[in-house]
Amino acid sequence: MSRDITFLDNLNVDNKKLISRLISKVEENNSEHDEILSAIHKNTGNAYRIGITGPPGAGKSSITNQLVKLIVSKNKSVGIIAVDPTSPFSGGALLGDRVRMSEVGGMPGVYIRSMATRGSLGGLSHKTIDAADVLDAAGFDFVIFETVGVGQSELDIAQAADTTFVVLVPESGDAIQAMKAGLMEIADFFVMNKCDRPGFESAISALRTILMFKDHDENSWLPEIIKAVATENKGITEIFENIEKHRNYLDKHDLLIKNRKARSLNRIKDIVKDRINFELSDFYNQEKFLNAINEVVTGSLSPYQLAEQILKVYKDKK
Amino acid sequence: MSRDITFLDNLNVDNKKLISRLISKVEENNSEHDEILSAIHKNTGNAYRIGITGPPGAGKSSITNQLVKLIVSKNKSVGIIAVDPTSPFSGGALLGDRVRMSEVGGMPGVYIRSMATRGSLGGLSHKTIDAADVLDAAGFDFVIFETVGVGQSELDIAQAADTTFVVLVPESGDAIQAMKAGLMEIADFFVMNKCDRPGFESAISALRTILMFKDHDENSWLPEIIKAVATENKGITEIFENIEKHRNYLDKHDLLIKNRKARSLNRIKDIVKDRINFELSDFYNQEKFLNAINEVVTGSLSPYQLAEQILKVYKDKK
Repeated sequence: MSRDITFLDNLNVDNKKLISRLISKVEENNSEHDEILSAIHKNTGNAYRIGITGPPGAGKSSITNQLVKLIVSKNKSVGIIAVDPTSPFSGGALLGDRVRMSEVGGMPGVYIRSMATRGSLGGLSHKTIDAADVLDAAGFDFVIFETVGVGQSELDIAQAADTTFVVLVPESGDAIQAMKAGLMEIADFFVMNKCDRPGFESAISALRTILMFKDHDENSWLPEIIKAVATENKGITEIFENIEKHRNYLDKHDLLIKNRKARSLNRIKDIVKDRINFELSDFYNQEKFLNAINEVVTGSLSPYQLAEQILKVYKDKK
Repeated sequence: MSRDITFLDNLNVDNKKLISRLISKVEENNSEHDEILSAIHKNTGNAYRIGITGPPGAGKSSITNQLVKLIVSKNKSVGIIAVDPTSPFSGGALLGDRVRMSEVGGMPGVYIRSMATRGSLGGLSHKTIDAADVLDAAGFDFVIFETVGVGQSELDIAQAADTTFVVLVPESGDAIQAMKAGLMEIADFFVMNKCDRPGFESAISALRTILMFKDHDENSWLPEIIKAVATENKGITEIFENIEKHRNYLDKHDLLIKNRKARSLNRIKDIVKDRINFELSDFYNQEKFLNAINEVVTGSLSPYQLAEQILKVYKDKK
């Protein structure tokens, strides 16, 4: 591919074959990885990136499904990156769901890609952002990340998206407690799905209580809570409107670019760290190093002394 | 302190003042950090490290409290590192709990240290492991890490402990679901606390179902589920016996040292990455770099190209 970057001329939202091929190459982390991402980079920055997260069973994929249909009905294109192992997009969940998904995936201007949750080198966050860059360069108006909100992944998604919303259900009480700190940091708004079930009012008021503790002033964005019943297509318009509202808020306060800069900074720091780890991986497999680890465990060498030695090895190696 | 490492002669489980001072110095990440940890390292490796985690409200601190009393009754010493923001050990929870904790903390051979959950440079994992090294070098028989099982922290704790157990309550259904993958990786056994409440049998059988999916052969350690009512001191002896049982299992299969080696390897890799980030922090604040980030966001420079430039800067800097 180094001989011709002409693939760029053919990269568009309807060339799903090329998109898939590029994402696969990027995922493999092979020698073409940097080349592809550097080549497409100048065409990125136009897609609006949406993060959807929440606990398993909250109906994230039903919401995504309906949201995609709404976006398509507005003549906009959308690429979806599903990193949720329980999502029908990425192979989990019920057959019925999966059939609905493949319907959506077959629509023109819609591309779905599922990605493994356990990344190798570089981890999930890198790969999803790299794949989003490919979709962005292809010209999609929107890129949606769908991921299950457990542990690190909800932070990863906020690291990838311009607007992130969290899908909950009335039964999510425990999950809300557990995710509290994380949720507060990442959610631009909440969707209370399955609002045809008992207990949704008290779930909403519990969530509202948590949100009250968020620091804010008159210029702050205040996360709303949107009621939805995804299976009946209720609340989807409101979700889309809230995404647009948040986008306008970011624009008005010059935060879109500012946030993207902050995310770029983190991304670059991550790339640097992973690259160094990768360059050191040979060294980590050497007998010399394994012996040094023995010395650490038996107490004759401290981990900080060994780390210093490794840094010296790294700097001396050009 | 560089002039005299004589503090080592005074470091013992009853010199709580010196222990506190050393942990504080280590926490601050100042110039003495490496020196202290390297000096004490040869005296580490004797403490058995226990990790206690679980969702908020499961009663981890009640369990810890009772376990500490049991350990003391066996004439053994124990240092506790509480990294759970909801724990009375680290300042959260009810006044009654806190009073009980300070009782335990005042016993001879018991030292309690709470640590902030949001670490600065190096993160939580480093600091807790560094602090545990101080306790280990002071001669404590056991070091207990208590942390809330949300997200990354449960993996951090498994990265720090020889034996880790997860405390759950009958109501933890959602938390079990959410933590499923993480739990399977880290729990050497489970404690179902508050077994005087309805629903504990079905919670235990649900957990057992999940455990069935764990790969194992005849030599595998199979995580047990221990019933407890911490407030009535029920199940605590069984917990301690299970810790000893797991310890014997590790010994018998030469896994104690093997696991410690694997954890050392990860620790050293983390130290190396953080050290590089720290050494680059000046550079990350330079105008030149901030301009480069602008170029990345506007599309004229790719993040991978910038990462390459940074690595070059790093290697050229000695």
